[in-house]
Amino acid sequence: MRDVAIIGAGMIPFGRRDEDTLLDMLSYAALKALDDAGLGDQSVDAVYVGNMGAGIIQHQTSIASSLVDRLNLLPAAADAVENGPASGGSAVKNALLAVASGYYDSALVVGGEKMREVTGWRATDFVATMTHPQAEYPYGITLPGMAGMFTRLYMQKYGVTREMLVAVALKNQEMGTLNPLAHVEMAISKDGIYDNQAAIVNNPVVADPLHLYDACPVSDGAAALVICALEKIKKPAKAPVLIAGFGQATDTHTLQERADPTDLKAVTLAAQQAFERAKLKPADIHVAELHDAFTILEIAESEHVGFFKKGEGGKAALAGKTRLGGQIPINVSGGLKARGHPVGATGVAQIVDIVFQLRHELPKDRQVANAANGLTVNFGGFGNNVLAFVLRRVDL
Amino acid sequence: MRDVAIIGAGMIPFGRRDEDTLLDMLSYAALKALDDAGLGDQSVDAVYVGNMGAGIIQHQTSIASSLVDRLNLLPAAADAVENGPASGGSAVKNALLAVASGYYDSALVVGGEKMREVTGWRATDFVATMTHPQAEYPYGITLPGMAGMFTRLYMQKYGVTREMLVAVALKNQEMGTLNPLAHVEMAISKDGIYDNQAAIVNNPVVADPLHLYDACPVSDGAAALVICALEKIKKPAKAPVLIAGFGQATDTHTLQERADPTDLKAVTLAAQQAFERAKLKPADIHVAELHDAFTILEIAESEHVGFFKKGEGGKAALAGKTRLGGQIPINVSGGLKARGHPVGATGVAQIVDIVFQLRHELPKDRQVANAANGLTVNFGGFGNNVLAFVLRRVDL
Repeated sequence: MRDVAIIGAGMIPFGRRDEDTLLDMLSYAALKALDDAGLGDQSVDAVYVGNMGAGIIQHQTSIASSLVDRLNLLPAAADAVENGPASGGSAVKNALLAVASGYYDSALVVGGEKMREVTGWRATDFVATMTHPQAEYPYGITLPGMAGMFTRLYMQKYGVTREMLVAVALKNQEMGTLNPLAHVEMAISKDGIYDNQAAIVNNPVVADPLHLYDACPVSDGAAALVICALEKIKKPAKAPVLIAGFGQATDTHTLQERADPTDLKAVTLAAQQAFERAKLKPADIHVAELHDAFTILEIAESEHVGFFKKGEGGKAALAGKTRLGGQIPINVSGGLKARGHPVGATGVAQIVDIVFQLRHELPKDRQVANAANGLTVNFGGFGNNVLAFVLRRVDL
Repeated sequence: MRDVAIIGAGMIPFGRRDEDTLLDMLSYAALKALDDAGLGDQSVDAVYVGNMGAGIIQHQTSIASSLVDRLNLLPAAADAVENGPASGGSAVKNALLAVASGYYDSALVVGGEKMREVTGWRATDFVATMTHPQAEYPYGITLPGMAGMFTRLYMQKYGVTREMLVAVALKNQEMGTLNPLAHVEMAISKDGIYDNQAAIVNNPVVADPLHLYDACPVSDGAAALVICALEKIKKPAKAPVLIAGFGQATDTHTLQERADPTDLKAVTLAAQQAFERAKLKPADIHVAELHDAFTILEIAESEHVGFFKKGEGGKAALAGKTRLGGQIPINVSGGLKARGHPVGATGVAQIVDIVFQLRHELPKDRQVANAANGLTVNFGGFGNNVLAFVLRRVDL
């Protein structure tokens, strides 16, 4: 299995992009990554698109074929990969293994979603298409509903408090205001969302005990990576970032079937696989992007990947250990919470943000000093299909 | 890059399967392939699902996560792959490269589609979601419409006649009646669809010059394969079939942009890549499954892959050269024309049929004697994303 590195990364601003089609967004992100890779006239051998909802939202299939045509990358092979909110991660995985196999030397991975074409209940319904088609969807469960029940159990078992959740929301929203690509640009204060009467209005309950500011927004967005066999990289435009480890694991589709629903086994397993491949351990990681579709998930994942013991993640967030400059900075980009969560884009966007970190090219107020190793966790379904990537800066 | 072989193959009867959900069909095909592989309690490392339309038709995403749960293959990695009517081929490709990379030792690939939940114009509209979202779909072009125009050009340039198209229809429908898994069970005669007044009623024009019997039916169905690194196969239950070569190429999304629309460049390129990898040539192939969504495509593909010179494919079909016992038997299964074309299933089903041939396990009236090498072509869009596989029997 050949080593594979990221040589190009690009992302378009997430948010409301009413003027762009899905294909526009995928193209813009792809061009940024291709340009970043400095490939010049060189093409890539294969294209992978991570997308969850083009069929449902855009009434469109074969989007990888459209994209490769639009980018004039013909006759490069092109496929779309779907794995719910982990579609981006799954696209990276398949590109990675294709290049690792030796069949292709290079690949472009683009993740994107245009979610704001559907609004109100239709947006929640779209996301709910990832629930079990017989055991969940017909009964009306939604992802915020699941997250609410999960949070209640986590609070009961591990003593997580609303204040800890709010600490995550404040940290990620603050970081989002510093990130020009983030969807959420609005600063919030503890006072405004937690402490006083105004908070009841500003931050209403969405799915008890989760409030509005515990959830990510519904966003349009796209992100892209160019990957290449390490042995084929001669004069890199920028420091390559090795995909040092990758892991993916599944769990029961429904939350109710898990012996302990607070135990996110697929997160644990995916991270273990990624660390094992990378020959690194949680303590070696300098910066992480975790899948904080809801604040509770950042806390739970920070424990399941091994940064903190079970029950310590919430306290760590409250103590500032996951802030920039803390023990392990998490979601310095703003995370899903503030960068936004265009579902098919997220798994790719997380890696793009880590690439920016490991290349040390971010402004001081967002750069983790001397970051060399990063981790991403892309969480599909409600933890039923999870991918983890360990990334390592390479100085050739 | 490790050699990868098929050790299990399974398919459920194609047709109308009103009683089954999509998940049922995927599960049944998967269980047949797993059983065929004789894995016993052994699991597989990864699952790949080929599907085009679950989002649109079933309003369902994350189907790979549902399937791996349903089959109790947890915590195996699972992704869905979409590439229009070549989704099945793309699922096989990604499973192949994942195992070839050394990351996984084994994988289950399941292709399936439940298309008969939508009827009438909605079925044609569903298929048309693979056309270009800005340059084609809004103008109402359908796949039969494209195929009709393509056929007219092919007739003009290469002298293909209606009689040659009918020869393909008769051959494939005749073979379909012998295949217990085929959708179309009805025998047809040249007299009934071509020669007399009754033919005008029985075989009306669909998209001039194509008639009803030039097109595949709209089917439900699923097919599955278990693949394994060749070096890991110890005591195979049945003769393994090596995936000796694979190729994939893209072409302009729209037919109109091609300098010569009769030139299916992606078919030529994909087949060339597959032959090159396999170190075989067209003359070495004993049996082929080509993507005859329309009769003209079997003729055109038989030329583009190199079985016949341009302009000779139609004559060869008329002369019986592509029948069982002929120079190169094509679509002995009945092809898409008679086995049916549940879009996500087709690329997998073609390979399943070749596996049955290369294992010499079919009844005499369908078995190509001593077949050792096979070819499949899975045609996405209108030739804008094509996969080809060269398969070789291995006697360990």
